Amino acid sequence: MRTVDLIRKKREGGEMTAEEIAFLIDGYCNGEIPDYQMSAWAMAVCFRGMTARETADLTLAMARSGEQMDLSAIRGVKVDKHSTGGVGDKTTLIVAPLVAAAGVPVAKMSGRGLGHTGGTIDKLEAIPGFNVERSRGQFIEQVNKHGLALVSQSGNLTPADKKLYGLRDVTATVESIPLIASSIMSKKIASGADAIVLDVKTGGGAFMKTLEGSIELAQAMVAIGEQVGRETVALITNMDEPLGFAIGNALEVKESIETLRGNGPADLQELCIALGAHMLVLGKRAADFEEAQSLLREAIGSGAAIAKLRELIDAQGGDIAVVDDTGKLPGAAKVVPVIAESKGFVAHIDAESIGIAAMLLGAGRATKDAAIDYGVGIVLRKKVGDPIAEGDTIADLYAQQADEKMLQEIAVRVQAAYRVEWEAPARKPLVYAVVTKDGVRRLDV
Amino acid sequence: MRTVDLIRKKREGGEMTAEEIAFLIDGYCNGEIPDYQMSAWAMAVCFRGMTARETADLTLAMARSGEQMDLSAIRGVKVDKHSTGGVGDKTTLIVAPLVAAAGVPVAKMSGRGLGHTGGTIDKLEAIPGFNVERSRGQFIEQVNKHGLALVSQSGNLTPADKKLYGLRDVTATVESIPLIASSIMSKKIASGADAIVLDVKTGGGAFMKTLEGSIELAQAMVAIGEQVGRETVALITNMDEPLGFAIGNALEVKESIETLRGNGPADLQELCIALGAHMLVLGKRAADFEEAQSLLREAIGSGAAIAKLRELIDAQGGDIAVVDDTGKLPGAAKVVPVIAESKGFVAHIDAESIGIAAMLLGAGRATKDAAIDYGVGIVLRKKVGDPIAEGDTIADLYAQQADEKMLQEIAVRVQAAYRVEWEAPARKPLVYAVVTKDGVRRLDV
Repeated sequence: MRTVDLIRKKREGGEMTAEEIAFLIDGYCNGEIPDYQMSAWAMAVCFRGMTARETADLTLAMARSGEQMDLSAIRGVKVDKHSTGGVGDKTTLIVAPLVAAAGVPVAKMSGRGLGHTGGTIDKLEAIPGFNVERSRGQFIEQVNKHGLALVSQSGNLTPADKKLYGLRDVTATVESIPLIASSIMSKKIASGADAIVLDVKTGGGAFMKTLEGSIELAQAMVAIGEQVGRETVALITNMDEPLGFAIGNALEVKESIETLRGNGPADLQELCIALGAHMLVLGKRAADFEEAQSLLREAIGSGAAIAKLRELIDAQGGDIAVVDDTGKLPGAAKVVPVIAESKGFVAHIDAESIGIAAMLLGAGRATKDAAIDYGVGIVLRKKVGDPIAEGDTIADLYAQQADEKMLQEIAVRVQAAYRVEWEAPARKPLVYAVVTKDGVRRLDV
Repeated sequence: MRTVDLIRKKREGGEMTAEEIAFLIDGYCNGEIPDYQMSAWAMAVCFRGMTARETADLTLAMARSGEQMDLSAIRGVKVDKHSTGGVGDKTTLIVAPLVAAAGVPVAKMSGRGLGHTGGTIDKLEAIPGFNVERSRGQFIEQVNKHGLALVSQSGNLTPADKKLYGLRDVTATVESIPLIASSIMSKKIASGADAIVLDVKTGGGAFMKTLEGSIELAQAMVAIGEQVGRETVALITNMDEPLGFAIGNALEVKESIETLRGNGPADLQELCIALGAHMLVLGKRAADFEEAQSLLREAIGSGAAIAKLRELIDAQGGDIAVVDDTGKLPGAAKVVPVIAESKGFVAHIDAESIGIAAMLLGAGRATKDAAIDYGVGIVLRKKVGDPIAEGDTIADLYAQQADEKMLQEIAVRVQAAYRVEWEAPARKPLVYAVVTKDGVRRLDV
């Protein structure tokens, strides 16, 4: 088998066999196939696409490229959850204890953040003492005992995907549905999930800007799940504004605690219940979506959900006092209000701009090795649909730094992220569609 | 300017500016842009193509990447000739002295062969003593004195093209009309030609297998010539069988001498006169194609053409005795006839197979550093349209080696290259079409 022939085959629109795909991925991962051949192949895939079968084989080849978690020692159906990334997205912090409280085991590995979106692991580390590193044995033992563990992704999970993604990033080959879908799904499969619930963000602040593109990506991932025997359900959800009010690590932990008590922002709570309910159905804990929703609402109302979070923090060495007194979380030196300069209704909040503003305050990493300040961030005071008047506070900056000029620039950036119009905008749904192996069910029509 | 943005622009079908193309080519040539970005860009070009303007800018950027010949010290219009490569193609050995004899200066740089097609420089070196290395001053002086010089290409001509071609070869990005066209034309422009006549081979033995593809490639090259002010004419010519009878270096020199005396194979003589006549017209030596043809026939008939070859060999240190006694050229130890196994008419001779058979005899290089045996090769005794009977000699192998088994295998390969049918094939034209800046003139309809 010659790499150049495989590139030509894809270039000419041919369907590659499982053996050919494994030859490419294994050869690339072990350094036998050079970057310049892989990038040419990736560009050919951008134009020619891949069949569902090819995409599944690519996913499996990447999942096999490194460590693979064996979760069979954990009782029950292990359901994983993944979001394509959004600003203010703290759903894992809420959904994981919520679903565990309702009886489905959650053995989850997460990553750190880079750029304008935060990572679950960074948020957990805002809790004093919380330890995200666990040996494989500890991890499994904790899930069997508490029904829940949230740990940092192993360094050797899907190295082929890591290498290929780095190459795609610098060769303009990121935007390919089969390549994106296989990248995400390979990590979920290597993590040992039996079933997967996906949150595919759509809109201005998301990777996929259009609803059609988001549905297509969701379908590709659901098809991979179908091909490899891991049932997968995807929700297509709104990212025309940040999720909830809080952006920034400790601020998001606080909002998560409030949501688990039933006092969270409406959009955040609705999305967490939707994602969690699908996890309960896939985990065979509920017969249907409605029953699953009731179980989750019950877990919040009864206090079981917040109790499970306390149990998680305790099991991983964190300070459980933060649950009842969020003032014990890392804080900011000052709060700077961002003032509205015009009146009308909030029509759109550019999530990416808000994410970058939070990063500039110190909540995120501009580069891979940058340090994070857990206490800083942004709390939105107005969301899409809200009326505002001149002089209203639209958001608060939680800042550590003394540089007033820098803070002023960040405030201007937040102001600019708000689009204000004369008329109240039409209400958009939070969940646009649900994609399952049976097809696409639109909820927005 | 970021390379990844330029790749994305081409991927999305955008037209690149001259500055963007120069940034890519210069950066690639000096090592700032890595292979993996260049191969992704080349693959995007395979799918998106390039406009005539972009192709011309790419050509100029590559032409500028290394040494550029300044032929302004040579009097007259310098017309270059290029063939896309065929088996048995010794036209340069004939056309160069023929055109020079008719009064148009020929200052030509040629290359060596690799694989199944021979190189002009290798053929010239079959003449004892012939020196293909000349300083720039000697080269120009020789053309001014004798109207003709044939030398080896400078090592630093179009290094960007050399590097890019090597990359395309291993990334399945060779087959792209704008990339092929710019590669060829960049070398011609860097060689200092004022005008160019192209011989674009078409058919089974050629790089371009279809007439449509060959015409498209010719149009792209003629358009480049138009854009950069070097008038270019392309002939689309038949490569459904090797050109002439002889394949192999000394054997081809012998056939060239016969053709310059007016005793060559009909197809070879016809093609040489067609190519040469277009050179005379572009070189302002003849008012039209008919007048140019007459001048060339006259040069052959009067002995001026063969005298010019003698003058060339003498000027470059070769043994002129070979012109009158081709027995002084390198020879072969034995001649092995290849016998027909069926009867009928020759319908097709696979030129590539014949080329490979000649290479296996030692006439060509399988790898870049392999040595050549100038005396060996193949002489076809039957060509397309000829009737054959069982037991006829269809070709002779001129061999040095004693390994009978190997010779037998080569003979079988030559036999297999002949397709014999019951009925005489329809006669195909030698020149299918002429492509000029005014359009395509088909000669086969």
